[in-house]
Amino acid sequence: MRRILLTVAYDGTDYHGWQIQNNGRTIEGELNRAINELTGEVIEVIGASRTDAGVHGMCNRAVFDTESTIPADRFYAAINTLLPDDIRVTSSKEVEPDWHPRKVSTHKTYEYVIDNEEVANPKIIRYSWHVRGNLSIEKMNEAAGYLKGEHDFTSFCCVNGNALTNVRTIIDIGVYKKDNLVTIRVTGNGFLYNMVRIIAGTLVNVGLGRTACEDINKILEAKDRTKAGPTAPPQGLTLVEIKDIV
Amino acid sequence: MRRILLTVAYDGTDYHGWQIQNNGRTIEGELNRAINELTGEVIEVIGASRTDAGVHGMCNRAVFDTESTIPADRFYAAINTLLPDDIRVTSSKEVEPDWHPRKVSTHKTYEYVIDNEEVANPKIIRYSWHVRGNLSIEKMNEAAGYLKGEHDFTSFCCVNGNALTNVRTIIDIGVYKKDNLVTIRVTGNGFLYNMVRIIAGTLVNVGLGRTACEDINKILEAKDRTKAGPTAPPQGLTLVEIKDIV
Repeated sequence: MRRILLTVAYDGTDYHGWQIQNNGRTIEGELNRAINELTGEVIEVIGASRTDAGVHGMCNRAVFDTESTIPADRFYAAINTLLPDDIRVTSSKEVEPDWHPRKVSTHKTYEYVIDNEEVANPKIIRYSWHVRGNLSIEKMNEAAGYLKGEHDFTSFCCVNGNALTNVRTIIDIGVYKKDNLVTIRVTGNGFLYNMVRIIAGTLVNVGLGRTACEDINKILEAKDRTKAGPTAPPQGLTLVEIKDIV
Repeated sequence: MRRILLTVAYDGTDYHGWQIQNNGRTIEGELNRAINELTGEVIEVIGASRTDAGVHGMCNRAVFDTESTIPADRFYAAINTLLPDDIRVTSSKEVEPDWHPRKVSTHKTYEYVIDNEEVANPKIIRYSWHVRGNLSIEKMNEAAGYLKGEHDFTSFCCVNGNALTNVRTIIDIGVYKKDNLVTIRVTGNGFLYNMVRIIAGTLVNVGLGRTACEDINKILEAKDRTKAGPTAPPQGLTLVEIKDIV
């Protein structure tokens, strides 16, 4: 029995998120189906990030155990032949039998993309949030600075979240603008349910002048979801990197 | 009666091209429907570029004549409320009553995007052609150089094309690489049916070493479609600019 680690990229637009569900296609469901077809075994992958419906992944991880004799580094190409083309396995390798994608220490990086043109660009509607009005990148970066470090992020967590603790560490966060595309890039040791999308919604409020930069501290201290901004829509969000901490 | 000029951006993935058809949704058809709903008039727009099924536009043009009293520069926003979100009118203005988008002298610029990663990136499959293998950008640029200037492009024209002459002028053409994304950018005074896609298919053959750079001259001289490379798939192609020649 070998444990195989896959790196998985997907356009989440047409999926009900990563996690398998009774109704609706999911990334996990498609991976299970493809690997079962390939190996003839009944396999259930374990994922690293259970991204939401409509959220994209460039580098999510999934492991599974198999008796198959397919060389570990050839799995990715074989699985791809059985997947829809909006899901691609980009690499595969063997890992230790007890290696678990949610139990290893990692830094995850998400990017949230905002289309700040007056009229939305149709070529990026699947991958961005269209926000009109003059966004102050300087203010968004100043506000983002307050989020850096270890905090209780209860105010930035969906009320249905069920984590044991809402304390997380944001290692790096920055807001970048290129033409009229604004990208919020955030790296942390883990994120609460909807946390990056609520951060994005709150920073947009700051950028539009609806929220003052220094209010971010008060929002953190309140530990109250209603104090933060809206949950930004899923399609702007992409998991771009997962890095092992060595 | 006023003539209104629209600039139109669209993701062509879910359309049977620009030009209205009996079967299938088209960009022109959606524009006609939206403007008719808005003005109550029976209107048929005239487009600048009749892009193919699956091809995208960032700046296509359409004109129509109307008795409506809507201010010319407000049409774009009003029409957008009646269009699907993968088509956006980005601006509108009044032009002379005899101004015709295919009779004015323009330079058109197309970009053809190639995903040169080993495994296709699912977030760009709608907007790129996935080509494996080491593409020599240097050779592609050298080959592209032979296409610059005025030539008979019969070899780079779909056999079903029905232009009066196959002589066109390529004003500028270049191949650029960023990470594993290769972009062919070509500007001309007009293009034959499928011309940019056949150029892309031919330059990819050069980049992969299947065709020698200097063979481009022989292909041009042959005036024979079968001598050039394959027609690259539509989704990599985007009309990015139309510029009036003053």
